[in-house]
Amino acid sequence: MKPIVFSMPGNEALAESLRIGLDAEHGNFTQRQFPDGETYIRILSAVKGKETIVVCTLHKPDSKMLPLFFICKLLKDLKAKSICLIVPYLAYMRQDKQFNSGEAITSEYFAKLISSIADRLITIDPHLHRRSSMNEIYSIPSNVLHSAKLISIWIKNNIPNALLIGPDSESEQWVSEVAKDAGAPFIVLQKIRHGDSDVEVSIPQIEKYINHTPVLVDDIISTAHTMIETLEHLTKAGMKPAICIGVHAVFANAAYNDLVKTGVKEIITCNTIPHISNKIDVSGIILDCYKGKN
Amino acid sequence: MKPIVFSMPGNEALAESLRIGLDAEHGNFTQRQFPDGETYIRILSAVKGKETIVVCTLHKPDSKMLPLFFICKLLKDLKAKSICLIVPYLAYMRQDKQFNSGEAITSEYFAKLISSIADRLITIDPHLHRRSSMNEIYSIPSNVLHSAKLISIWIKNNIPNALLIGPDSESEQWVSEVAKDAGAPFIVLQKIRHGDSDVEVSIPQIEKYINHTPVLVDDIISTAHTMIETLEHLTKAGMKPAICIGVHAVFANAAYNDLVKTGVKEIITCNTIPHISNKIDVSGIILDCYKGKN
Repeated sequence: MKPIVFSMPGNEALAESLRIGLDAEHGNFTQRQFPDGETYIRILSAVKGKETIVVCTLHKPDSKMLPLFFICKLLKDLKAKSICLIVPYLAYMRQDKQFNSGEAITSEYFAKLISSIADRLITIDPHLHRRSSMNEIYSIPSNVLHSAKLISIWIKNNIPNALLIGPDSESEQWVSEVAKDAGAPFIVLQKIRHGDSDVEVSIPQIEKYINHTPVLVDDIISTAHTMIETLEHLTKAGMKPAICIGVHAVFANAAYNDLVKTGVKEIITCNTIPHISNKIDVSGIILDCYKGKN
Repeated sequence: MKPIVFSMPGNEALAESLRIGLDAEHGNFTQRQFPDGETYIRILSAVKGKETIVVCTLHKPDSKMLPLFFICKLLKDLKAKSICLIVPYLAYMRQDKQFNSGEAITSEYFAKLISSIADRLITIDPHLHRRSSMNEIYSIPSNVLHSAKLISIWIKNNIPNALLIGPDSESEQWVSEVAKDAGAPFIVLQKIRHGDSDVEVSIPQIEKYINHTPVLVDDIISTAHTMIETLEHLTKAGMKPAICIGVHAVFANAAYNDLVKTGVKEIITCNTIPHISNKIDVSGIILDCYKGKN
């Protein structure tokens, strides 16, 4: 029996790529709102005994969680064989301990809720800062996929003479890895602290790379503050307009426009959160994972 | 030990009335959003061993559910003695059976989720259409309070010469009850069907009540379509401008303005959903219930 792919609102493009790649059925369902804001859900496809896949990125998660909860409960009630959640951007990974007393460890509460409604979870580059594995908080089997290789390939194919830039020493490991696979050099900005608010930023070997195209890479572009600051340093140093690459196009409030206004050459993201900047397709690595190839 | 009252955002006024009425502590907590839309919650008050009350009306429930879920989980982790949810408007009561195959029975899924995070639930005039009791779906003790008496008293004290109007025969029982306690007469509009789309509406004994102030009462004012239609019939019949009373001020989209535009004399609601039309205070019946007096 073919698996069946359901796309929560907004995930249609990626869900359709996955459906085609898996030769799966399209999951037909209705979702609408009652006047008081309640969600109505009706599954029209036959799901009994079938493997089901629900694609739901969880950027701005609060309003998405209850509809996702309902559709998963309904799939179980309609006797679907299994539910695999594909969550390209997984929310609630940052608050993973009490930094201050009385804080809700939302990553655990959220993980328990997700684990109670699905059988398997596939996600891409989650913020696993203080956790070594998803299994510490998710009780269902989960797969964490990485987009670094896809980003490297994109750079290799699209940016001649690229120079990868790390905004600080923390980013060195990640930037060096992407640079290596892209076959491009990299530098990391150096901060020299002269006093509490007096920080000098230097760009090492700037003369050597003055004709390269600077490429900034980050996992989440959120407020874009760090990227914008880095871009200012590059401009001051007389470098060419940069290309900014992010895995997850969060772009809080006016962040995208703020970034555009810096005169950046191009803004590129993976399609983990639908956005006009999406250029790097993650459907291939999800398909390989679902089929058990990676 | 005094109980402690937490107000989810938007419920501050009612929560403060309850806190004063119970001589309870104010529950101090922080709730804010991360740039990707995740909710951060930190409880600052000491809650260990205390009875806690969380006030959270559930109009537009989807975006409110996850923060409510988190705060309840956190209260348990911080060893609160008990959690009483005060939900003046309770969502997800309408979809209580499969009218069509494949529909999510959201009232059951939602009730299970709420029952998993709290110890007790107090609500006002929920839409118990096909259920005889909350206990059929909620596994925690619940109290259903009714605002009819409060509405009757408000009419008695504020509308001289009131005439209660029921828009159709279905509303007769509810309207007659409110009318009786308000010491006012009532009439019910009669629909005479001449064909599929040819319905004549007549107002019985119209001559007798031409100098009364018509009062329309409904449990939820949602799209306000029925009220607006009824108001048109009253205007055509030459009656005075009406007063519209609703328990729950849902007012979907432009419903409130649409209602205002009809030339209605006044729009009055209970404070179960914060709205400028709130005039009838439900805090008294909630307090009596919490204290075990009703």
